[in-house]
Order: sequence, then structure tokens, then C-alpha cells
Amino acid sequence: MRETPVPDLTYPPLTVAGLSEAELLERIFPRLNRGPETNDSLLLGPGDDAAIVAVPDGRVVLSIDTQVADQDFRLEWNNGYRSTGYDVGWKAAAQNLSDINAMGAHATSLVVSLTMPPETRVAWVEDFADGLTAGIRELGATQCSVAGGDLGRGSELAVSVAILGTLDGRAAVLRSGARPGDTVALAGTVGRAAAGLALLESGPNVSTLTREQRGLMDTQCRPQPPLAAGPLACEAGATAMMDISDGLVRDGNRLAAASHAVLNLDPAALRQLAEPLKPASVLLGADAMAWVLGGGEDHGLLATFAAGRPLPAGFTAIGSVEAPASTDGAGVTIAGRRAESGGWDHFAN
Amino acid sequence: MRETPVPDLTYPPLTVAGLSEAELLERIFPRLNRGPETNDSLLLGPGDDAAIVAVPDGRVVLSIDTQVADQDFRLEWNNGYRSTGYDVGWKAAAQNLSDINAMGAHATSLVVSLTMPPETRVAWVEDFADGLTAGIRELGATQCSVAGGDLGRGSELAVSVAILGTLDGRAAVLRSGARPGDTVALAGTVGRAAAGLALLESGPNVSTLTREQRGLMDTQCRPQPPLAAGPLACEAGATAMMDISDGLVRDGNRLAAASHAVLNLDPAALRQLAEPLKPASVLLGADAMAWVLGGGEDHGLLATFAAGRPLPAGFTAIGSVEAPASTDGAGVTIAGRRAESGGWDHFAN
Repeated sequence: MRETPVPDLTYPPLTVAGLSEAELLERIFPRLNRGPETNDSLLLGPGDDAAIVAVPDGRVVLSIDTQVADQDFRLEWNNGYRSTGYDVGWKAAAQNLSDINAMGAHATSLVVSLTMPPETRVAWVEDFADGLTAGIRELGATQCSVAGGDLGRGSELAVSVAILGTLDGRAAVLRSGARPGDTVALAGTVGRAAAGLALLESGPNVSTLTREQRGLMDTQCRPQPPLAAGPLACEAGATAMMDISDGLVRDGNRLAAASHAVLNLDPAALRQLAEPLKPASVLLGADAMAWVLGGGEDHGLLATFAAGRPLPAGFTAIGSVEAPASTDGAGVTIAGRRAESGGWDHFAN
Repeated sequence: MRETPVPDLTYPPLTVAGLSEAELLERIFPRLNRGPETNDSLLLGPGDDAAIVAVPDGRVVLSIDTQVADQDFRLEWNNGYRSTGYDVGWKAAAQNLSDINAMGAHATSLVVSLTMPPETRVAWVEDFADGLTAGIRELGATQCSVAGGDLGRGSELAVSVAILGTLDGRAAVLRSGARPGDTVALAGTVGRAAAGLALLESGPNVSTLTREQRGLMDTQCRPQPPLAAGPLACEAGATAMMDISDGLVRDGNRLAAASHAVLNLDPAALRQLAEPLKPASVLLGADAMAWVLGGGEDHGLLATFAAGRPLPAGFTAIGSVEAPASTDGAGVTIAGRRAESGGWDHFAN
């Protein structure tokens, strides 16, 4: 993985206001869909009014997600780090690939819309395209191509990605299928991105971070959703699944509500998840367990499986599904006690 | 078509900052996919990590487009008009449906991402959902469902829509197939949205507009792309096609470049297109022909057909395709003379 972007040595730096849309697209296209893999599903790529993508099994899994500067990521952080275009492109890929993963599908194509202030540097946009391409490839979504996009001007930087996936003939894993007795399991990490966010917002200067701390920061800036785990869980008969983007408890509450069930989490398993975050929590005077329960953006998978069945590779048991005591009793508990929600809501204060 | 939104009589008005994301979604969902038609292609609608859409012919046509307040539309205009949420929802639908139309396909589903400042009124968002739904239905895209979406916060209002379409087994009509001798034809209108924009930006107060002037303004705020014409042109063997979103000459140059051809437009046909815009151009001291040649956003269709074949319903001949005199000679001419580009570029000044 590349750590730093190529510096822009022109002065004054070339900005998007200095190029036409066509000139900017000419700089972006060659940076997309690079790599050793060939992708047969992209029947018509960028450049016409729309793209055409093959959908062999007759159904497409479809999602859209937008990231806005200073809401979903910062361009400049308190600890001195500056998000690169590469980071933003990677994160846009990761976040959307994760939604497809959470259905048990794998991604076949995406389209991206980039809204930019006119003073945005062209080198930043090129770096964004590189990060998008690298995220797709390095996260293992080798069947996913960038089918097209849209460039526009705005006063704040924003990235929208819509993504398509295929289930290869399988049934999707929804949020609503968890049943009492099922095992609750997790793939990927939780809390690392939240720890990274805390380091970026109030930690020591980025230049002094240890390798371990830098790793936490990278999980915030370039998340690593476990893309193999979604289709594996689907094949293994997962009864319900979703990705954790707003926090384990908040997203767990959503899965629990959709399934009319209680997800009762095991405190010992949660403590084990918090353990590797201890050094950073001590450094920052923070609570590692709050990161585990409330931190989103690692894009791990929360899934349920019928009891007694072996969990697929990458999943660890963290609790069990129980019947709610009352009709409005669905939600997440920890050793039987209702968990505080925490986590991220775009609007509620 | 509803002309005015329901007024918000609560005080202080309820804003999106006063609701959680879930509460806001509860207000939006019932407003989507309303109408008499049932749509079998939406296999899984909003509410999970992703939607699932049926794709009977094994290929999906795919596009994405973003509109940003004060770039692609204004919330308050100089003539006193205020864009309603209904307008913005309608325009988002129209613009994206047009991209699918331009491939010769019809839309099957879309996903929408809405980025809003926290002070956005909830009534505005509800109105947006109504306008999106009405745009889809009243423009005739009755097979198109809203499959899902994303809500987020930002400092400026922005709407991204990604849309899927089907070709029903036909080959798509690309921009690159125009051949010397073909007839150049137009479906829908050109110049009306530009005239409407001029009225909104420098015309008389909205309350004093005539019915005809108000109609021009409506073409800017609620475009009427000719959605039947795209699939008809495809069936009739159109050799090339695109929608006119940035202006007849600018988009014509793109089609010409993709086809390595010259689109030679007929001055008499152009004058006929300018004729109905004369009263507004006289009122504003503007040039009706500049609106015809440079105005985008009507989302008419520019297409080419083999000579001598009858044009499908809705299309009018406006010129013919010629071979370029040199390798870099592709472009739009009027009676053999190179046309000035005009039109809209997001970045170039």
C-alpha cells in the first residue's frame, strides 16, 4: 500500500478550475480499472450517457453512499495529518464494497460522482482515482470495475458511489432473519477506526505516532472491510447479516429490530475485542470498550448463524440471539442488560 | 402536476436536525413508489444494507448524476421564485431518467443520496420525496422504482441519483455510431430551459409571469425529457444518440467526436426551434438562437438515423451527418460553418 501521494511540484498548483471537464476526465480514466485482472462484466465503460454491466444471475444488488468532507472525513486533522485524495478514494470504495459484502454478495461494478470546489488540485483528483482503484483491488474486489461517473462543482468536497453486486444465484442474507438460539458472530474488526479517529482528533502529532497507532489511524482513513467473509457467511447459511458502519450496538439494534430479537453479547468476548485497543485508550485517557461498542467505520460484519453449526472462516462468536421479553423488547444486551447505544447518527444530537 | 408545496405551519419549523435518521426515513419511505402501478423488478426495497433488483435480460444500464444547490439549481432565484423540494426531486428524477433514455433503454430502479444542511426543513424533504415520485410517474417511467437511498449531513444541499435501466434484449445506442449520410434528428425541446433560467435570473417577478413564461420556467425547474423517444429510436435503428444536457452544440460536438463525423445542422430547422422562444427573448433582450444552440437541461434527445428511413414518432430532422474534412475536423457545423460551442462546462471558465 502506498503511504504518501506524489507531491505536486507545479506552482501555482494546477486546480480543477484550470481544466475543462473533458480534460479532467482524460486524466482520471487511465487511473481506473488498472491491474492484472480482466473484468468481463463491464460491457460498456465510461464515456457514454451510461455504462452497461453484465448481470449473469438476473438480479443485481444495489446501494448508494455519500461521503462529505468535514462530515464523513476531514481533509485536515488536529494531529497534523492531511487526508490524501488516495485516502478518500480508498474509503469511498471500502464503504460501498462493504454494503455489498453485508448482503453476502460480491461487487461487480460501481459508478462514482465527485463534487469539488474549483480550487481542488488536479493532483488530488488523480490521487483520488488511484486510491479508489487501489481500494477495490487490494481489498480483494477483483471482479469490480469502475463503470462510469460524474464530475461537478460544489462548495464542499463530496463523493457519492453507487455499487452493484451479484449473489451468484444464492439468496441474500438480510437483517431480518436472526432467530432465538442463533450464534451472534463478528468478522473483521470493531473499534479500531474509532481509536484512529481519536488519535487524529486529539492524539500526538502524526509524525510521532508508533507503527501500531498509525495502523489505527489507517483503519479510519482506509478501512479494511473483510470482503471474503460476506459471501462465505452466505454460503454457510448465515440467518442475518449487516455491516457495522455506525457502531456495534447501534447497528446491532437495527439487526435486532429487523429480526424482532435480542442480541445478547458476551462480556468476555467484548473484553477480548477491547484488549488490543488498550494502549491507545490509555494514551488518550479514553475507554476502549466505548470504541468497541460505539465505534463505526471498521466495516466489520455482524452476522447470526444457527447454533451448533461451525462458523465460517473469519468469524468469531460474540453472543447469542434470544427472544425478546416484550413486543418492543428487541435490541442489544450485554450479559442480559440493555446496552447503551452510542455510535453515530447523522442528524440526532 | 402539483404547483405549490403544502405550507409548513409549525413554528419553529421542524428541521432535519430535530429527527434521527430513522425518524426521517419513516417520513420518506411512504412517499416513494406510490401510484397505481406495481413493479415486479424490485425484489428487495429500502431498509437493508442494499436493495435487490431483477435484471431479466442479463445486462444493466447504469448511470450516476449529482445536483448541487447553487450550481445545478438555485433555492432562491432573482425573480422571487423559490425552488421547492418537489422541483429538486422532480429534476433529479428527470435528469437521470434522461441518461437511461439516451441509451435507448428504460429505467427499472434508482437509488438516491440526499445531503442536507441541518437547518433543512423536514417538510422540504417530504416534498422532495413527493417530487421524485411524481417525476418518475408523470414522465412515464412507470417501471422505475426507488430501490433505496442514503441520508447525510453537509453544508450545502446535494442530491446524487444512480439509476438502472434495461434494454429488453436490444443493443444500446451509443454516441459513436453516426455515419456520413445519416439524418440528424431531435426529440423533445431545446432552449426552453435556458429561456426559463433567464427568466428566473433576470426576468420580471415570478408573480407577474404569463402562463407561457411560467411554462419556460417549469422546463428549467421540472424538465420533461421525452422518455418514450429513446427506446423508440433504438427500435428504429438509430445509429447514435445522446441526451442534450449541456447544449445542442456542446453535446453535438461530443457525439460528433465519438463518431469521427460532422453534424451539419440546417439553419431553417434551427430557426424553427428558436421561433417559440422569441417572445421571451424580446422581453429579456436575449438571443433565442443562443438558447437553442447553447442551452442545456431540456434533456431532449439528439440522434442520428440512416438516410431515407422514416424517423420514429417524436423526432424531427435538423441536419445531416457528413465526413470530416480532416482527422481533427469532427464537430458541429451550421450550413457548413463551424458552430460556436457555448453551453455549460462544470469547470472551464
